[in-house]
Amino acid sequence: MLVTFLSDFGLEDDFVGTCHGVMKVIAPEVEILDITHGIQRHGVLQGAIVLANTLPYLPKGVHLAVVDPGVGSSRRSIALRSGDDRLFVGPDNGLLVPAAEKLGGIEAAHEITNRAYVLEHVSATFHGRDVFAPVAAHLVDGVALEDVGPTIEPESLVRLEVPKPDVTHRRIRASCLYVDRFGNMELNLTRQDLETLAAEPGTRIELEIGSDRYYAVTARTFADARDGEIILYEDAYENIAIAISGGSAAVTFSAHPGTEVRITLAP
Amino acid sequence: MLVTFLSDFGLEDDFVGTCHGVMKVIAPEVEILDITHGIQRHGVLQGAIVLANTLPYLPKGVHLAVVDPGVGSSRRSIALRSGDDRLFVGPDNGLLVPAAEKLGGIEAAHEITNRAYVLEHVSATFHGRDVFAPVAAHLVDGVALEDVGPTIEPESLVRLEVPKPDVTHRRIRASCLYVDRFGNMELNLTRQDLETLAAEPGTRIELEIGSDRYYAVTARTFADARDGEIILYEDAYENIAIAISGGSAAVTFSAHPGTEVRITLAP
Amino acid sequence: MLVTFLSDFGLEDDFVGTCHGVMKVIAPEVEILDITHGIQRHGVLQGAIVLANTLPYLPKGVHLAVVDPGVGSSRRSIALRSGDDRLFVGPDNGLLVPAAEKLGGIEAAHEITNRAYVLEHVSATFHGRDVFAPVAAHLVDGVALEDVGPTIEPESLVRLEVPKPDVTHRRIRASCLYVDRFGNMELNLTRQDLETLAAEPGTRIELEIGSDRYYAVTARTFADARDGEIILYEDAYENIAIAISGGSAAVTFSAHPGTEVRITLAP
Repeated sequence: MLVTFLSDFGLEDDFVGTCHGVMKVIAPEVEILDITHGIQRHGVLQGAIVLANTLPYLPKGVHLAVVDPGVGSSRRSIALRSGDDRLFVGPDNGLLVPAAEKLGGIEAAHEITNRAYVLEHVSATFHGRDVFAPVAAHLVDGVALEDVGPTIEPESLVRLEVPKPDVTHRRIRASCLYVDRFGNMELNLTRQDLETLAAEPGTRIELEIGSDRYYAVTARTFADARDGEIILYEDAYENIAIAISGGSAAVTFSAHPGTEVRITLAP
Repeated sequence: MLVTFLSDFGLEDDFVGTCHGVMKVIAPEVEILDITHGIQRHGVLQGAIVLANTLPYLPKGVHLAVVDPGVGSSRRSIALRSGDDRLFVGPDNGLLVPAAEKLGGIEAAHEITNRAYVLEHVSATFHGRDVFAPVAAHLVDGVALEDVGPTIEPESLVRLEVPKPDVTHRRIRASCLYVDRFGNMELNLTRQDLETLAAEPGTRIELEIGSDRYYAVTARTFADARDGEIILYEDAYENIAIAISGGSAAVTFSAHPGTEVRITLAP
Repeated sequence: MLVTFLSDFGLEDDFVGTCHGVMKVIAPEVEILDITHGIQRHGVLQGAIVLANTLPYLPKGVHLAVVDPGVGSSRRSIALRSGDDRLFVGPDNGLLVPAAEKLGGIEAAHEITNRAYVLEHVSATFHGRDVFAPVAAHLVDGVALEDVGPTIEPESLVRLEVPKPDVTHRRIRASCLYVDRFGNMELNLTRQDLETLAAEPGTRIELEIGSDRYYAVTARTFADARDGEIILYEDAYENIAIAISGGSAAVTFSAHPGTEVRITLAP
């Protein structure tokens, strides 16, 4: 079985490599697939969105995710089983829930308390290495989910508030969920939302970001737009996103996760 | 068999991890070797050079490469076989051609059209995940190259224009092909070109970059120069490169791929 | 057996991928675990510290490390065996020594001179690819350490000067060893040093960095502090480190490896 691994650890330091090592010591045959370690520091919501977006494309396995601003505090360490038989390991801060709910729902939840499956010395600041990676490796190695600690109620798990858009046929208030390396801004909108506004491909749109207004067009892909043109398109995870052909929307609009975007049809 | 993977996806987002996952779902035994995902955004020529430079050092396999500014447009998706029995998968924008021609020449070229070997839903903006990674995985899994789609003429493939230097025994006009993390500037020159100018190791050289002139020396390695000295040396891929000992040539000269460099013997 | 790999190569270029490829050509079954390639350019001391910190968490294997400002000069290429039966491969510039000494001591040291185990053409600037990766792969493949070249005296190996703190019960002069992606500053101090100053958890501390003074508190983890508070804590490798809750200590203090920090009890 495979461990997939997502975190905000970055690749400049040894954090990811050390977690790989800890898993390999416990389960020498484990195969590890790194989803990304580029989640923004402490970006729990961003991590949760990326995990839920990507897991449907990945093999079933133990899904280890660590974005953990509360490390060393009283937040719980948890392991979950989803309806489609995937296992999840990480902090109880909402990170794992959207993915598990998307993939069959949370069938079982356990708090990690069994000292047999964590490192002997657990530091106060690096539970990725000392708790979560070891538990993931033991699960891959055949330890039963039930053995990591007591059952907890799925309803008791911490949940994130995913911002909801306000969609009418005159105007949409959306917000930016994620900015990728190319500066493309994923919004909390689907194609259906945009259709409510009667925005067909090629429709001219007015965007209001902060106190500025911009013209944009709906398009299918980057190559359909002229350089410098602002486009709204359905991205690869079926969210509506904003891009600037040949440029960076996030830089141009100083946008980041949470930035509000108001959308109307252009007059 | 192995898949090697090169792209401009970066590692901040999930793009690379998701492509790994897609391949692992199709071919659970596949081994994936990441060449680099740090190719400059849309740097097709840069990607082509890195692929041709590195493949001679890598095991034979399926060589997946995605630098794809035309994704979702009418540019073709292709799979190639080279004379030394390597397979290549990527967009028809010139990215694959220099490597394939270096490694035995293009023996067969196919357009990817068979829907059986791509994901069920193909997005308009992420063919790395939806087309190229799946085809690479199916090829590793034993699908015949001929099955991915119809034969196309190798002559019909898009080719890049690699800038050629202008070399005389009085002066060389070269251009920068690639800048690495250390700021070293790889030029489109070989040692033979430099010998035409009668530049032996230790020769003093005059460089003209933009409207500025600099003195440099030819050297074998960084440790042969004093800190801050500008050196011309044969890099590990046997191109002539410019470095500043203990510094960054690219930063000092504001250089990037395409920057022109004029070289004469110092008076 | 496994190769672990640490370097200052970064992931923007192909350096790491090419070294992986070279190892896979020589030893197709080799498994490679990347510790990190984010060591600061030419940061030999930083690389040595990270290697010594992380190896106790990693499986035994061949430990390849390349931070090599002297590449192509007369510095030796070496392979070591430590008392706990790990093998080390890299340049003789002090990089490997602290880890090997921590893991059982240096039992055997050899200079790499046997041309049979390096690439046919050895470049002057990329011994990672041409010397160290091939030797690591051959060692994994069963070549005996003795075969890579003649025995050398462990005492003759280059050693780094690790800065020592000056600790009294009135004042500590420490220095920053390492800055991580979160801006946390690892110091050359242990908990015992801090106890000499009678600093218990929650004690108020005065820091002097450059010509500025700051108040800080000792804490167990980030979550114990208020946003913006400066904390001293024992990090995951049991060194004392400075962090700013919700911020970057290194940015706030313009700190980097080598920055001096003076610590007294707050009045």
